Amino acid sequence: MEPERPGEKLGILAGGGSLPRIVAAAARAAGWAPLVVRIGDGVTDDWTGYEGEAFAWGRSGDAIAYLKRHKVRRVIFCGTVTRRPDFRSLLPSFRTLVRLPAAIRMVRGGDDHLLRGVSRYLERDGFAMLAVQEIVPELLAPSGLLSNRALREDESRAMTIAATAARRLGELDIGQAVVASAERVIAVEGVEGTREMLARVGDLRRRGRVTPSERCVLVKSVKPQQDSRFDLPSIGEATIAEAAAAGITAIGVSAGRSLILGLEDVVAASDRADIALVGLADEQEEGRP
Amino acid sequence: MEPERPGEKLGILAGGGSLPRIVAAAARAAGWAPLVVRIGDGVTDDWTGYEGEAFAWGRSGDAIAYLKRHKVRRVIFCGTVTRRPDFRSLLPSFRTLVRLPAAIRMVRGGDDHLLRGVSRYLERDGFAMLAVQEIVPELLAPSGLLSNRALREDESRAMTIAATAARRLGELDIGQAVVASAERVIAVEGVEGTREMLARVGDLRRRGRVTPSERCVLVKSVKPQQDSRFDLPSIGEATIAEAAAAGITAIGVSAGRSLILGLEDVVAASDRADIALVGLADEQEEGRP
Repeated sequence: MEPERPGEKLGILAGGGSLPRIVAAAARAAGWAPLVVRIGDGVTDDWTGYEGEAFAWGRSGDAIAYLKRHKVRRVIFCGTVTRRPDFRSLLPSFRTLVRLPAAIRMVRGGDDHLLRGVSRYLERDGFAMLAVQEIVPELLAPSGLLSNRALREDESRAMTIAATAARRLGELDIGQAVVASAERVIAVEGVEGTREMLARVGDLRRRGRVTPSERCVLVKSVKPQQDSRFDLPSIGEATIAEAAAAGITAIGVSAGRSLILGLEDVVAASDRADIALVGLADEQEEGRP
Repeated sequence: MEPERPGEKLGILAGGGSLPRIVAAAARAAGWAPLVVRIGDGVTDDWTGYEGEAFAWGRSGDAIAYLKRHKVRRVIFCGTVTRRPDFRSLLPSFRTLVRLPAAIRMVRGGDDHLLRGVSRYLERDGFAMLAVQEIVPELLAPSGLLSNRALREDESRAMTIAATAARRLGELDIGQAVVASAERVIAVEGVEGTREMLARVGDLRRRGRVTPSERCVLVKSVKPQQDSRFDLPSIGEATIAEAAAAGITAIGVSAGRSLILGLEDVVAASDRADIALVGLADEQEEGRP
């Protein structure tokens, strides 16, 4: 999506990871003027070269005022939120205080619920929410085999097990990632995130709880009820490295509904690690052949 | 259940943890002569005072011959199996070798599947499988509030979320334990087991990924399709200590279909840690009020 007029402000509500930078650079290239807002305690990312400001959770109400003062109409969420606000421990500013009841309602429920809540809240305030893929459509995962190596037969069975479990978990707004072998589910992502779940799998393998002959695959799947405007599952080069370190030999992601941060580099990293990378079509995710 | 004649042999296929000792002692008190068979590599538990033998995975076929030689007709599985056999790395004995195809079919699928497989296998060989609760019925978790302190309102909501997720996961033969708050699922047990999942929750809390105000509960739930003759979920004093260390404030277990190893001590430990302990009736586990 292009700005209505060159130099239109785009509010980027930036979490952690590499995605916010990719979005900001693509937005700028498309003629937007990115305004990068970071909300959280102890946010230290370097955003030199971009206009913007960081707000502690206790001042998140001020962030809205900041966006309005800069005449921002369109905003986009991207990046990871690893640390949630503790509404008992913060000292809210006045603007945050008047919005506190809505904010508390928001953090009830899973992350998906949190984001839907924040989104509704911003829309009531007159902002339009954009999806990452409206700014950087080339990030969407293609369908089918992406790596050089195709799935082995046991990896294909493992993929079905992991995708079925991930889908089922997504219905409950639990994490988006599952590791399975052709025999069983090995690990399920909770709030710890994919990176730590993969570290756990590596650890289980080193301790012999998963044997060398049991090939494992990772599936990152979109939740069935997912609002595709935010928090699509994403993988990047780091994910491939973490998966390889955990002994994962194949990775499946939701085709068209998940993000691959730098397709060429991610595919090259998969090939180097001899990992089979596939974009799963909907019917594959539901365990249908 | 009592032996048909005093001194009848009872084959105890003993995994790790305290349960096998409890079963062996109760069986002896009821007039059985326990014969303790341990299968696994590097099994070092001390079973002084009990007749029995340890077999490496590669000699598991010999264990059957051993039980037959001792005229064992009834066997019971108990304890945890943390290390699965790697059928590529073992050097099977002749007796194991002839049974290898069946053994390989068994380790396909989840733990529940594994145990069902082993059980069918033993039954074909003429053994009768007993359940732990047939020897020690007092281990079955009672229904309702077991601790001094009742559930707080947010713990009660968290219990519903955790029980619903645990039930859903059980349908897929994934772990039996889930940690949730009133807001979301925090952690899901994979092959790592409850102890390590609880350590993860403690870690998430220390790092601020779960805030101090977000009270968390643990649910250990029976799988809907569970064969109650083996692998019922169980908790003991160690579970309470591990839960307390993770900041868990309430624990729910399937009433009548899970084991509490030493009810009096477990309840006392819960009270000391100010943990609310409840036996969940079926309808509670399904999220119905």
